[in-house]
Amino acid sequence: MNIGILGLGLIGGSLGFDLRSQGHHVLGVSRRESTCQKAVALGSVDQASLDMSLLATTEVVFICTPIALIVPQFEQMIAYLSPTTVVTDVGSVKAPIVKAISPLWDHFVGGHPMAGITDSGIEAAHRHLFVGKPYVLTPDATTATAAINVVEEIVRSLGANIYHCQPEQHDRAVSWISHLPVMVSSSLIAACISETDPDVLQLAQKLASSGFRDTSRVGGGNPELGVMMAQYNRQALLRSLQQYRHNLDELTNLIEQEKWTDLEEKLTATGKARPDFVE
Amino acid sequence: MNIGILGLGLIGGSLGFDLRSQGHHVLGVSRRESTCQKAVALGSVDQASLDMSLLATTEVVFICTPIALIVPQFEQMIAYLSPTTVVTDVGSVKAPIVKAISPLWDHFVGGHPMAGITDSGIEAAHRHLFVGKPYVLTPDATTATAAINVVEEIVRSLGANIYHCQPEQHDRAVSWISHLPVMVSSSLIAACISETDPDVLQLAQKLASSGFRDTSRVGGGNPELGVMMAQYNRQALLRSLQQYRHNLDELTNLIEQEKWTDLEEKLTATGKARPDFVE
Repeated sequence: MNIGILGLGLIGGSLGFDLRSQGHHVLGVSRRESTCQKAVALGSVDQASLDMSLLATTEVVFICTPIALIVPQFEQMIAYLSPTTVVTDVGSVKAPIVKAISPLWDHFVGGHPMAGITDSGIEAAHRHLFVGKPYVLTPDATTATAAINVVEEIVRSLGANIYHCQPEQHDRAVSWISHLPVMVSSSLIAACISETDPDVLQLAQKLASSGFRDTSRVGGGNPELGVMMAQYNRQALLRSLQQYRHNLDELTNLIEQEKWTDLEEKLTATGKARPDFVE
Repeated sequence: MNIGILGLGLIGGSLGFDLRSQGHHVLGVSRRESTCQKAVALGSVDQASLDMSLLATTEVVFICTPIALIVPQFEQMIAYLSPTTVVTDVGSVKAPIVKAISPLWDHFVGGHPMAGITDSGIEAAHRHLFVGKPYVLTPDATTATAAINVVEEIVRSLGANIYHCQPEQHDRAVSWISHLPVMVSSSLIAACISETDPDVLQLAQKLASSGFRDTSRVGGGNPELGVMMAQYNRQALLRSLQQYRHNLDELTNLIEQEKWTDLEEKLTATGKARPDFVE
């Protein structure tokens, strides 16, 4: 197949490697000439261009741009595509994207590979990035069945685990396990540095070990990514934050009222629930 | 020196290994006969007994029991000690312990080695546990200088990094970097499992990856330890929780009001502050 990749970063570049190794002809489009050259030199794509017309012969296109560009780039791109070209994206929030693109393109299937790593860019792209990772697809009632089948087959060939759900369900799920943790974790760091006794602050910095390291990790991550999550998944995230605040207040009240048995029950319950998420 | 260890768990047992290898004569006391036998068989102590009178000849005693037992065990023990015996403890909260013991024993130096690992018990004890780890000492104005010097010398010989501070400063510092993270992290798990759509909950469980894993880790830990922290460090922890709630509300309000530039500034600030704690 001729497969297009619009946006040659970590995800787009890694997709290219795997698709080429399966014998597909991969055509890449980037906004930067230097990225095009790198992608070809590394062997991630067969051809690359700044010009979207390169995608005219593709049967499938993966949109792998930053989330803010997915809809505008799609709108630019459709002028070059045949109406049966299957289009999918890899954006980490799905409802606003599906809502914008689905009415315009019945061969569009929203997608989200959960394969993020800390590094980014074409230099970080590598083979087998998606093996054993979740890959969510969010077709809706108007999506052409043929399009779903094509995307599913490609995703399966990457070795990813496919999950189907509604875009809104996806966004609520990732608000719990991906976007809420960023805000929870960032607030932890913000609280610690608000300590007004410089001796205590310095001591806290010296004594911090693995517990603080792990709990604060995602709150110390890429701020642009954090803002993007909040912007695109605002409603679900606010709902999660409200629920979280309620649970935090419950724990605080138990400590305030010295209800140690109840506190132990709560901590036991969260300890028991965690393996369902992480194992 | 004759050194006593009261409580032969991970910390007490590990201390024994290091002190013996330096040529000290180590005398262990445990509440369980089987632990006494294991400690001797493993080579962590020279002699062990259920009977505190074994400690009569010691020049220094480390109290390494669970925190709730430190003060009552000390009160039982003093009948057997000479008044110049140096006593120190390894409890993870310092103010209540120092407040109780200091008036009774001017050769008492509060201590807290930050060398916890997930495992516990004499079976988990091992050599060099304290190397490169922080070890806080909290003598007060009434503590005999000779006692401080003796404890410092031993702690230095373990390879630990010594910090001195007031007991209250220690407790505030650990409430930020150790006790608050447990409550923050447990509340994250509690919030996630409150999701009422079973499809969304299941999806969240399937999609959770390293971000959720790290942020939820300490909230899924030993519930008894969590309750102990809250009980013994209640005041400092409540203060930290109150400040944390304020920082969480600030972030939530920025998202609510779509103040994206301000949100990016906050996330940037926490990203910049984190390395002071973890590097």
